[in-house]
Amino acid sequence: MAPMTRKPHPARHPTTAPHRGASRHSSPSSRLDPAIAARLKRSTDGLVPAIAQQYDTGEVLMLGWMNDEALHRTLTTGRCTYWSRSRQEYWVKGDTSGHVQYVKSVALDCDADTVLVKVDQVGAACHTGARTCFDADVLIEDAVSDVQSLGQ
Amino acid sequence: MAPMTRKPHPARHPTTAPHRGASRHSSPSSRLDPAIAARLKRSTDGLVPAIAQQYDTGEVLMLGWMNDEALHRTLTTGRCTYWSRSRQEYWVKGDTSGHVQYVKSVALDCDADTVLVKVDQVGAACHTGARTCFDADVLIEDAVSDVQSLGQ
Repeated sequence: MAPMTRKPHPARHPTTAPHRGASRHSSPSSRLDPAIAARLKRSTDGLVPAIAQQYDTGEVLMLGWMNDEALHRTLTTGRCTYWSRSRQEYWVKGDTSGHVQYVKSVALDCDADTVLVKVDQVGAACHTGARTCFDADVLIEDAVSDVQSLGQ
Repeated sequence: MAPMTRKPHPARHPTTAPHRGASRHSSPSSRLDPAIAARLKRSTDGLVPAIAQQYDTGEVLMLGWMNDEALHRTLTTGRCTYWSRSRQEYWVKGDTSGHVQYVKSVALDCDADTVLVKVDQVGAACHTGARTCFDADVLIEDAVSDVQSLGQ
C-alpha cells in the first residue's frame, strides 16, 4: 500500500527516483521485491533510516541505515541487516558482537522513507554496552509538559 | 556525555563539522545549547533524524527531522518541533492538525546523530489519520525468527 505523500521531497530527493542506481551507495544488484522498491523513497545516498525497536518491551534500541539490499536481507534472513555508512558494507547486526537482532516485523512509514523493524535483541544494542543507544545522553527527562500544563 | 564514536562518518559527513552553517539548511541563528550543538552530528543538509515515541505505550509514532533550532525549541517549549524538508520551515507538530506532541524526554544516541523524543501524542500521529506512521504498510509481521529457530 502506498498512501498519498504529504511531504514531497525537494528536487534533490525526487519522489520519482528510480529504485536502483540513484547513487554509488544504492544497491544495483538488490533483490528487493520490486513492488517495495518502487515505493521506497531514499535519501540522495540511496539509504533510508531504519529504527530498531525491541518487539515486546517497546524500547527504541538504535537507528541504522538500509539500502534496498539490506532491507531485502532483513526481510528474508530473519536477521536485521544494515548498510554501514562508515565501512561502506553490509552489517549483519551481531555478527561481530553476538548482539543479534532477530526480526519480528518490518514496516514502512506512510511516506515509505523510513523503516521500523521490531526485533528480539540479544544483549546490548549499543556498541558501548548499553542496552539501547539512547541510554547515555539524555538531554531532558520527566518533562512536565502535557495537555493540562500547556493547554491545547 | 559524548561516548566514543564507533562509526566515523566519511569525509562528506565530517565528525568535526562546525555546528553552524554546514549548509543552507542548518540554523545559523540557533539558540541550541552550545554544549549540545558541539557534539551533534548532522547530515550534509544540517539535519538529524528524530524519532517520536509515545512515552507510556512505547509506540514508535513517526520519524521527522530536526536542525539545531528545532531541537532547541523541542527542548525548551514542551512541544515537539521539526524542520519540514518539504516546506523548508519549522513545523510545530499539531499546530495545524491539533495532533500535538507534548515532550516528555529527549535523548541523543551514542553517536549524537539521532534524537529520540518521548512524547504524549494527542490523537493521530500520522497525517493519514492512523495512530502511527507505521501502521499501514507492514511488510512482514509475526516472523518466527528467534534465538531458538535461527540459532546464534
